[in-house]
Amino acid sequence: MLFLKVRYLDLDLETNAIIANEKDLKGTAYYPHDRVLIETSGGSFIGTLYSTKTMVNVGEIGISKSVPVPLKEGEEVRIRHAQKPISLNYIKKKMEGQILKPHEIHTIVDEIVSRKLSNIELSAFVVSTYINGLETNEIVEMTKRMAETGEKLEWESSPVVDVHSIGGVPGNKYALLTIPIVASAGITIPKTSSRAITSAAGTADVVEVLANVNLNAEEIKRVVKATNGCLVWGGAVNLAPADDIIINVERPLAIDPKPQLLASVMAKKIATGINYTVIDIPIGYGVKIKNEKEGNQLARKFIELGDLLGIRVECVLTYGGQPIGRAIGPALEAREALMALNDPESAPKSLVEKATSLAGVLLELGGAAQPGKGNEVAWEILSSGKALEKFNEIITEQGGKETKPDEIEVGNFTAEVVSPDSGYVTKISNKLITNVAKEAGAPKDKKAGVLLHAKTGNKVEKGDVLYTIYSSSEERLNAAVNLARRTYPVRVEGMLLKRISRF
Amino acid sequence: MLFLKVRYLDLDLETNAIIANEKDLKGTAYYPHDRVLIETSGGSFIGTLYSTKTMVNVGEIGISKSVPVPLKEGEEVRIRHAQKPISLNYIKKKMEGQILKPHEIHTIVDEIVSRKLSNIELSAFVVSTYINGLETNEIVEMTKRMAETGEKLEWESSPVVDVHSIGGVPGNKYALLTIPIVASAGITIPKTSSRAITSAAGTADVVEVLANVNLNAEEIKRVVKATNGCLVWGGAVNLAPADDIIINVERPLAIDPKPQLLASVMAKKIATGINYTVIDIPIGYGVKIKNEKEGNQLARKFIELGDLLGIRVECVLTYGGQPIGRAIGPALEAREALMALNDPESAPKSLVEKATSLAGVLLELGGAAQPGKGNEVAWEILSSGKALEKFNEIITEQGGKETKPDEIEVGNFTAEVVSPDSGYVTKISNKLITNVAKEAGAPKDKKAGVLLHAKTGNKVEKGDVLYTIYSSSEERLNAAVNLARRTYPVRVEGMLLKRISRF
Repeated sequence: MLFLKVRYLDLDLETNAIIANEKDLKGTAYYPHDRVLIETSGGSFIGTLYSTKTMVNVGEIGISKSVPVPLKEGEEVRIRHAQKPISLNYIKKKMEGQILKPHEIHTIVDEIVSRKLSNIELSAFVVSTYINGLETNEIVEMTKRMAETGEKLEWESSPVVDVHSIGGVPGNKYALLTIPIVASAGITIPKTSSRAITSAAGTADVVEVLANVNLNAEEIKRVVKATNGCLVWGGAVNLAPADDIIINVERPLAIDPKPQLLASVMAKKIATGINYTVIDIPIGYGVKIKNEKEGNQLARKFIELGDLLGIRVECVLTYGGQPIGRAIGPALEAREALMALNDPESAPKSLVEKATSLAGVLLELGGAAQPGKGNEVAWEILSSGKALEKFNEIITEQGGKETKPDEIEVGNFTAEVVSPDSGYVTKISNKLITNVAKEAGAPKDKKAGVLLHAKTGNKVEKGDVLYTIYSSSEERLNAAVNLARRTYPVRVEGMLLKRISRF
Repeated sequence: MLFLKVRYLDLDLETNAIIANEKDLKGTAYYPHDRVLIETSGGSFIGTLYSTKTMVNVGEIGISKSVPVPLKEGEEVRIRHAQKPISLNYIKKKMEGQILKPHEIHTIVDEIVSRKLSNIELSAFVVSTYINGLETNEIVEMTKRMAETGEKLEWESSPVVDVHSIGGVPGNKYALLTIPIVASAGITIPKTSSRAITSAAGTADVVEVLANVNLNAEEIKRVVKATNGCLVWGGAVNLAPADDIIINVERPLAIDPKPQLLASVMAKKIATGINYTVIDIPIGYGVKIKNEKEGNQLARKFIELGDLLGIRVECVLTYGGQPIGRAIGPALEAREALMALNDPESAPKSLVEKATSLAGVLLELGGAAQPGKGNEVAWEILSSGKALEKFNEIITEQGGKETKPDEIEVGNFTAEVVSPDSGYVTKISNKLITNVAKEAGAPKDKKAGVLLHAKTGNKVEKGDVLYTIYSSSEERLNAAVNLARRTYPVRVEGMLLKRISRF
């Protein structure tokens, strides 16, 4: 065991790196790159040991600010070898295609949450469940454990409802309309969202343009008490934290295994303390779910899992074959959502219709609309301006301020991509247009993204602008333009697609 | 693009971490944790960007010593965004169970070698080939590319022979006998070995107790020219470097997928420029290959792959049900091998027999023994002292010195594990005894390991010492003793295993 004094290093490393003077390691059983357990007055964490000749003094241990435990400068900590994570055995069982027992699933989740698994081990877990799948019972156990190992929100009144999109469609900012519609009908809807995983903007990234989304449990309760709703980032409140750690590995691999998708969504729902949820499953080329059949299968899984976990789930299959609305990227999407709240008549139909139909289901579930009348009631609330009013309340409670659409800043480096021919837009590729927005800097660069001027089916003339790319950086703008030139995210073709002649 | 001046940081981080002052990143398209390409006068490499307020000055970039490119302190380097690795698409194809095309395999190998893949991505590749396998043609392409993307050794005379064990048996130090036997018969045998992957000591770890094993291509040629043989670490000479990078990910997962095993072994063979190789496939409970049937399958794969790659392969199945000899751990094994070279009559039979039979096959292949007479000739060379003489020549050429067995230092913290009962040793678990040696510190602690006093089938009395654990650290010794107490690596039972009575 080593005893060393903490010295905070001004360095934000990915892993829980700790750095010792090599003199302190010499002759001990501790070597650079060893996985060690650091025991402190404020708790313990697993880290990786590195060595230096000069960066920290003998007797000190350099610790980066990102470690998950509060430390005092100069406090003495104990360092010893970390046991090999027990869950590695169970991850190997999953690689072999075996079904895991409840306690094995629990151990995996527990060791994920306590950061005992390295990125290599986490990646092995994600990839083996992606390939070999998880049975319903494994998913139930994983979901329950994920919910148990984090914070839980509790509510005085019921029902508490929720809407969740499994994602995959660019520009999917409907929640900025749906939540205020439902909340202004007096129904409690504490919406937690994620940041972008593979997309150019998650709902949390979009809302963050207008307000703080990093609210803790107390702050969320206050906002919901005041407004019936909220639009916050789930990650800040430590709901089912295993999920966020898993997502950090899925993101670079750009995969989202179905069993983990199910567990991830439902664990957050349990932790959020809701009674009803509507799950939006976009269907189409280039989203997670290719066709109605697959959509039905996934919907049944969600409903089955909800029954086993005590949450009423309704699923809706929605059209996901091209972006929702015209804007892709945090600031552009926030601006489009605000425009739709201000003037829904002029807003893109795909956005408004999706937002009101999802709100309609929730209004019916929550008893604020007769069965079959939900969509109509939702539209009334939106067009009356009540949704905008409620949205401003929520934003204000979350530390933002009432903003006009044209006050939102977007990237000041822009490029227009024009149609090479006259014809019709036959396809907008979700994946390729997302890649262009990401190349331009989204979601990290909030002002980056793409604004579509034409959508599938629209007629365009040669030289018409198909879309504008925005970025805060000239370099990234150029990279995005190059990518767009190589990949053609928006296809324009004549009406005559193929001519078949007699022979 | 960023232009910054190099400042070497005295810090040996795992990833190619580079650290910028946060003022230099502000307002740019560069964010902490971004994957970036660093272009320097000496070449370029992919790294991960971190930020600091104080550790490096504005205008500087802190770079750790472990980056793969030589840099001058103060030189200006260019930093720009790394493209997402192309091979990620192919890794995903493999996750989906698809067969990869030659150019896709090549891209994966190329991007592994150029360090474009993160640990998360490498782990995904390893796990998906572990689960979904690789077809023969995929393995051929992978093998060829792995050999092409590194250094190659070339030899003036032929045949050049080689022996390789696929591992899995603790205490497998036969090469320290086999190589000098073959070399002293005038046959060229440039043996490159690996360090431990999942074992307590690789051959390179054992030889390193006596000599330098980190030889470059020129040095290897010099040693082989002088002695006909060598015993070096393959990793130092950059033969098929993709393999070493892959092994670094397999090691923490403790997996060794068969397709990668095949590619890894054969790529090194091609790069080493050999004509004939003998592959030792240990069979038994607790090694990689469980039974003869599996062993035959793997042998056929090796031979088939050899034919496709122009290398003559012979395979031998050997008994791997318990450790070879009595010593496990680098220094203990080096000592046992030296004892066997000095006095083969008194050495453990399992070690001497394995060493001479493998040498025998090589002597026959190399034309130094009549078919069927190899083993006999090998024993003559060993018992005459010529093998010891040759071993000392090799060790001396590799910067070591002639050493007597009892001059080798082993761990000065020791613990004896005694038999709880009188009876017979019915089983020594390869895996559990390896774990005890590793818990004691092997292979990093060269002096750590286990010395067996009894082997399977031996009669022992209650209180007899079954094995001694060695370590350089009291703490690790205690951890190893605790592990031994919990897991019983050596089983002792009465002759009467089960009594079946009349009813």
